Amino acid sequence: MSDELPTGPKESPPALRAGPREVWKKGGRLLSVLLAVNVLLIACTLISGGAFNKVAVYDTDVFALLTAMMLLAGLWILFYLLRTVRSPDSVPYRDSHAGPIWLRGGLVLFGICTLVMDVFKTGYYSSFFECQSAIKILHPLTQAVFVIVQTYFLWVSAKDCIHTHLDLTRCGLMFTITTNLAIWMAAVVDESVHQAHSYSDSNSSTSHTRLALDLERAGSTVGGDCSCNTAVCQIFQQGYFYLYPFNIEYSLFASTMLYVMWKNVGRLLASSTHGHSHTPSSVSLFRETFFAGPVLGLMLFVVGLAVLIIYEVQVSEERGRAQQALVIYYSFTIVCLGLMTLVSLSGSVIYRFDRRAMDHHKNPTRTLDVALLMGAALGQYAISYYSIVAVVVGTPRDLLAALNLAHALLMIAQQTFQNVFIIESLHRGPPGAEPHPTPPKEPCHGLTFTNLDALHTLPTCPPTPRLVGPNPAGPQEAVGSIVAPRSPWKRRCLKDIALFLLPCNVILWIMSAFGTRPHFSNTVEVDFYGYSLWAAIVNICLPFGIFYRMHAVSSLVEVYVLS
Amino acid sequence: MSDELPTGPKESPPALRAGPREVWKKGGRLLSVLLAVNVLLIACTLISGGAFNKVAVYDTDVFALLTAMMLLAGLWILFYLLRTVRSPDSVPYRDSHAGPIWLRGGLVLFGICTLVMDVFKTGYYSSFFECQSAIKILHPLTQAVFVIVQTYFLWVSAKDCIHTHLDLTRCGLMFTITTNLAIWMAAVVDESVHQAHSYSDSNSSTSHTRLALDLERAGSTVGGDCSCNTAVCQIFQQGYFYLYPFNIEYSLFASTMLYVMWKNVGRLLASSTHGHSHTPSSVSLFRETFFAGPVLGLMLFVVGLAVLIIYEVQVSEERGRAQQALVIYYSFTIVCLGLMTLVSLSGSVIYRFDRRAMDHHKNPTRTLDVALLMGAALGQYAISYYSIVAVVVGTPRDLLAALNLAHALLMIAQQTFQNVFIIESLHRGPPGAEPHPTPPKEPCHGLTFTNLDALHTLPTCPPTPRLVGPNPAGPQEAVGSIVAPRSPWKRRCLKDIALFLLPCNVILWIMSAFGTRPHFSNTVEVDFYGYSLWAAIVNICLPFGIFYRMHAVSSLVEVYVLS
Repeated sequence: MSDELPTGPKESPPALRAGPREVWKKGGRLLSVLLAVNVLLIACTLISGGAFNKVAVYDTDVFALLTAMMLLAGLWILFYLLRTVRSPDSVPYRDSHAGPIWLRGGLVLFGICTLVMDVFKTGYYSSFFECQSAIKILHPLTQAVFVIVQTYFLWVSAKDCIHTHLDLTRCGLMFTITTNLAIWMAAVVDESVHQAHSYSDSNSSTSHTRLALDLERAGSTVGGDCSCNTAVCQIFQQGYFYLYPFNIEYSLFASTMLYVMWKNVGRLLASSTHGHSHTPSSVSLFRETFFAGPVLGLMLFVVGLAVLIIYEVQVSEERGRAQQALVIYYSFTIVCLGLMTLVSLSGSVIYRFDRRAMDHHKNPTRTLDVALLMGAALGQYAISYYSIVAVVVGTPRDLLAALNLAHALLMIAQQTFQNVFIIESLHRGPPGAEPHPTPPKEPCHGLTFTNLDALHTLPTCPPTPRLVGPNPAGPQEAVGSIVAPRSPWKRRCLKDIALFLLPCNVILWIMSAFGTRPHFSNTVEVDFYGYSLWAAIVNICLPFGIFYRMHAVSSLVEVYVLS
Repeated sequence: MSDELPTGPKESPPALRAGPREVWKKGGRLLSVLLAVNVLLIACTLISGGAFNKVAVYDTDVFALLTAMMLLAGLWILFYLLRTVRSPDSVPYRDSHAGPIWLRGGLVLFGICTLVMDVFKTGYYSSFFECQSAIKILHPLTQAVFVIVQTYFLWVSAKDCIHTHLDLTRCGLMFTITTNLAIWMAAVVDESVHQAHSYSDSNSSTSHTRLALDLERAGSTVGGDCSCNTAVCQIFQQGYFYLYPFNIEYSLFASTMLYVMWKNVGRLLASSTHGHSHTPSSVSLFRETFFAGPVLGLMLFVVGLAVLIIYEVQVSEERGRAQQALVIYYSFTIVCLGLMTLVSLSGSVIYRFDRRAMDHHKNPTRTLDVALLMGAALGQYAISYYSIVAVVVGTPRDLLAALNLAHALLMIAQQTFQNVFIIESLHRGPPGAEPHPTPPKEPCHGLTFTNLDALHTLPTCPPTPRLVGPNPAGPQEAVGSIVAPRSPWKRRCLKDIALFLLPCNVILWIMSAFGTRPHFSNTVEVDFYGYSLWAAIVNICLPFGIFYRMHAVSSLVEVYVLS
């Protein structure tokens, strides 16, 4: 979604420019996108081939590819860091919207968990070192180094708008994004294979093992004395599968931050960072809420954790207990999703009375956020619609089917209304920026900068000193002077809503990411579509659904700060 | 890819505006996108469910859904046409880039073929009317009416920038797009099922019939005296499968034109249609070329048709003849793709010496063209990479494997270089618009209009008469006066290149669309991935590959006109 409104205000006057303006920015981007698409497709081919037992592509091939990609991307990152340290002039502007502190904080947190996972993986493969290919130990070690280098790089440079070696930087960034997406794909595939394995174990019917089982293959190639029998090895194996969700989120967070950097390559900004500040004052962190939202959200969070534990314990037992676990799980999620839907809806209603101006400034971070929220929701939408068709057409008339239908419908409603609320929140101007009865200030503001930009470059259009203020604070002061204070209850309500939705999304993320799979425990869809088709649908769509939750969390933090 | 440059020049001065400017355009778009996504997912669920034999969703369900959607979309179109006829003020601007004549011409052509297909389908289902559900005859009849109404609508209104009932119009357009995409999906799935059926017939091994066979089911439900045994019925059945490619292209062409209309809802344009005219003078249609391009292209086209006929005749015969047919097919495509790669590459080289300014104006049609070219290429890329992995890892060492590898590599190279050439061509300014040694005129041009826009709305910024020319032709005249004539050989070369690539893309489209499937005749990939996985890959990716060819043709026509 590209803004059609004048994007002038954030462009800088030419006097501040580091180098000549690019002739054709899209051409440079095209090259790097072509590189990324091709590398990603090669990775995708090998990873998907490696997931199937019948296909003669082995996991060592995938590990070798990923290791090579991480080494290359790591080298490029080091080169970038060296270059920007040596010539600070190459980064003349920094995008204040990019890489906010909570995103970087989340990245560090997930990065640390990924490092622990790498330790576990190294330990696991070291347990039977003599029977394994060396690449299986080299891979987690390389990944650990890559994660450290990349996290430092994103912490330092996430806001950069670099202006030298444009094409090289774009290609490097795109290659690093590709590396992260390839790691994500490999992790998702490995987890799906693991899930399929444990499902076929619990059902012990061989006809259902459609997806190739990596573990089985590993067991057969390892053979005899090389199998993972020691207690330490078992712990390592269990541990690294439980840490996969963090690795997955790390890769996705890193990809989004790298993408914003890629959009910012060669971008011209006004040096005065116009726009809302992203650092909330820690003193007033909870003072401006009614406390109802966060308290209710935390209660749901705790109940959700209890439900998760009950579910995990009961679902693998005999049929009656499993049914009970499913009923508890569905009841909880239905209540949770229902409340979230109502709360998001009331947030949208509040905005109907809110008279803050819409923020039309160009903001790659926000555009990406909106696209990801809408795109990632598709995954859960698809699963829900397949469930609805299975229940409605298959017409099973029992409690579980009814709960399943309600769950699917509420999931669609909740994601839709939450997306509408978040996207509308992200597009509101900073607090206190109510529009004046006279027309909005944007064009005037844009005018000043566009003039500066245009008049300097064009000898045929001499500058008009009256319009071109030498200091850009002028029009901002003018805007500031007409600001009216906003009614505080609206603001408090919006903050409460954000703080309620936040823990709810976290608990839904934890439930999906750490292995509740009602999709398979519940037999409605498996019977209707057959195991292989339903497993393909869930395994392709669910990773997007899980990513949606975590991305909604990071967006809700932003909504809370902006409200 | 959104332009970051000032998009001012095409915005109109406020005096020309029909209504008040929308507060938040993205909000209105969001609603219609949400509607479209949900409807599309429901259709996708039913259509994919209907394709599998085991799933209890039947083709009558799919037909009923499609018929309902077409009726609704048709009613909305009639409502739109009535409204715009009654109040011509609601369409104050027309986008000169939208719906060029060759796109509308192509739409009419494909629409006529779709009507013929509908006649055949009605005839086929009428042959055993008593054993069929009525919806199977109702569906092609409704489709015929829908095609007529929609083609008329797009012929008349493709350029409209409507300014009343914004949200309703957006939702209506999105719903119509969704209807077309659902028709496309249903046609693609039906064709894939048909292909799988004929493949399993020729191989007559039951283990390969993974995809549900609609026809078998039809045969079994029809039973006894209701089967399609008469000669007329057979002709109808054969005929409508051969006409599917036109129906598929019709739906996609209509979708792209509707999408551009959707982007243009509520758009403000200068009433003087700035930009290059799209109507080529028919006198000079071929005069400005060297004739080498079109002649060589037509020769390849004719040879390709001969190869196609040989292939179709020989491939279903015994093993030796089939092998020979594959060698002929691969040899021809390798030569064709190799030549196309070289020619595209030389086109890009010519642009390195071309000093025309890049056209940075906002142009939804072009943005969509670029996105579709890049996106549709992914389909063929994916097939090629899977082929490459199968040949390289599977290591069969015979002539066919070598030809297959060369074919896959050249396919990637050809699509990449052709995309680069087309996208660069679309972004060049109109012929003769060479940049002056002084800085580009864009900002000055943008300045004038931005000023007009901003100054009128802002009482705090009084208009400066010196900058605000009352007639927008002023700055354009200034641009015109500094234009230098371009060397004609470059122009001729570019036209030649476009006219060479055009028939080549047409013949490659014909080959894929009318049923050459070397992917399955050649056993390398089927043996490596197994039939079900390989069929899934090809059946999902190939429709995009076929669409790519037709879309490249329409873009090349534009390149030819612009050069």
